[in-house]
Amino acid sequence: MAGVKRYKKEDLESYCLGATVSMEYLNIRPQNVTHVYLHSAFHESETKEKILKICKERHIPCDTSDKVFSILSQKENCFVIAMIRKYSCELDKNASHVVLVNPSNSGNAGTIIRSATGFGVPNIAIIRPAVDFFDPKVIRASMGALSRVNFKYYDSFEEYMQTDGAGERYCYPFMLDGSVRLHEIQIRKPFSLIMGNEATGLPDSFASVGQPVRIEHGNGIDSLNLPIATSIGLYEATKGSFG
Amino acid sequence: MAGVKRYKKEDLESYCLGATVSMEYLNIRPQNVTHVYLHSAFHESETKEKILKICKERHIPCDTSDKVFSILSQKENCFVIAMIRKYSCELDKNASHVVLVNPSNSGNAGTIIRSATGFGVPNIAIIRPAVDFFDPKVIRASMGALSRVNFKYYDSFEEYMQTDGAGERYCYPFMLDGSVRLHEIQIRKPFSLIMGNEATGLPDSFASVGQPVRIEHGNGIDSLNLPIATSIGLYEATKGSFG
Repeated sequence: MAGVKRYKKEDLESYCLGATVSMEYLNIRPQNVTHVYLHSAFHESETKEKILKICKERHIPCDTSDKVFSILSQKENCFVIAMIRKYSCELDKNASHVVLVNPSNSGNAGTIIRSATGFGVPNIAIIRPAVDFFDPKVIRASMGALSRVNFKYYDSFEEYMQTDGAGERYCYPFMLDGSVRLHEIQIRKPFSLIMGNEATGLPDSFASVGQPVRIEHGNGIDSLNLPIATSIGLYEATKGSFG
Repeated sequence: MAGVKRYKKEDLESYCLGATVSMEYLNIRPQNVTHVYLHSAFHESETKEKILKICKERHIPCDTSDKVFSILSQKENCFVIAMIRKYSCELDKNASHVVLVNPSNSGNAGTIIRSATGFGVPNIAIIRPAVDFFDPKVIRASMGALSRVNFKYYDSFEEYMQTDGAGERYCYPFMLDGSVRLHEIQIRKPFSLIMGNEATGLPDSFASVGQPVRIEHGNGIDSLNLPIATSIGLYEATKGSFG
């Protein structure tokens, strides 16, 4: 635990807080797990046995250290922390994408990652400035599903369109004044669902990108929250695709 | 500010943290606002003028007190706090409802309130044990939309069905093994969308209530998060209802 300290964006490592989240990384990306810490109050259980087994097989150091928890975790119900080495991914250019333009909230990012995984669209383009997907708050809010998605940062939407968004692709920017209603169109594949920032939405310039859509709702609220809008888009775009 | 202290469930008052949230209560339920506090750093703005105007018209005391903020708010960007007297609501028995069985998370509850308001279903039944809807964290996560909904607690689902859920009504419990897929059925009105607890979902006994439905997704995740599932249900049930 030498040198364990609270996450900062420039660090080369991040961490998973909690048993469920840590198990996802141990199952899906064990090659990126560098160390596992267990709390002394982590009782014997099937989960604990599984963690010990993977660590042993993969030669991942596994120590009991309550001090690490007092440094890294504010939650009293966190008994496992998996340290992970950061990695980079490439998007599948032929697959459908979620494109997040300037997402700012870590909890929202995690919830979107979880929905994108669930709806089988595990390729996420992120346009800077944007929240850091390796932030432990993002990883935790994703329930560890970050391990299952490809995500990549771009300096501009144009950069995305000229690289991984190039080729045959149907773009759907979600805008409050989008010209068609989501439930009235057929989303074609591969699609890019393009979502704006939590507070400001997409810039007006996106009205000329692909087919702008809106999710109809009443006027009691200004807008749906970002993960809700993204997930409704994913639901419409993928329904009927799962056994 | 005599006696201002952090919210506890048994208090007769709660509060709105932030200008947007406070404005919702001042606009929609001014009769429940007992006091407004402004931070000394709250700059002159249209919002500030509106707040001062409503307070004056409604004879709501309005004071500048930074101490109240240091007691009630952890966020550095909170410049307005509206104290509200708790009130009780009745559900519209003839309208569609969202029924939350044992919801436990305040942020989730707030997000659901915002979606229910947006999709024009502002009647929420809550089955105990459950999170306290007057918790400032719920009010804030709802962006103040709590002011726009009727919500009521019941000791059991049976109590709800025998009272405000009685009469002609179509019940749709959302279950991971629901027998039909959401996008393949016609949701009839007035409906009750019934959602379980974040961690445990609905008890098996709900399989015999109305028409159990499931939202299809792949197996990369165990389940969608609760506000996402609720909002997708609301979206399907209401689409085509808005101008």
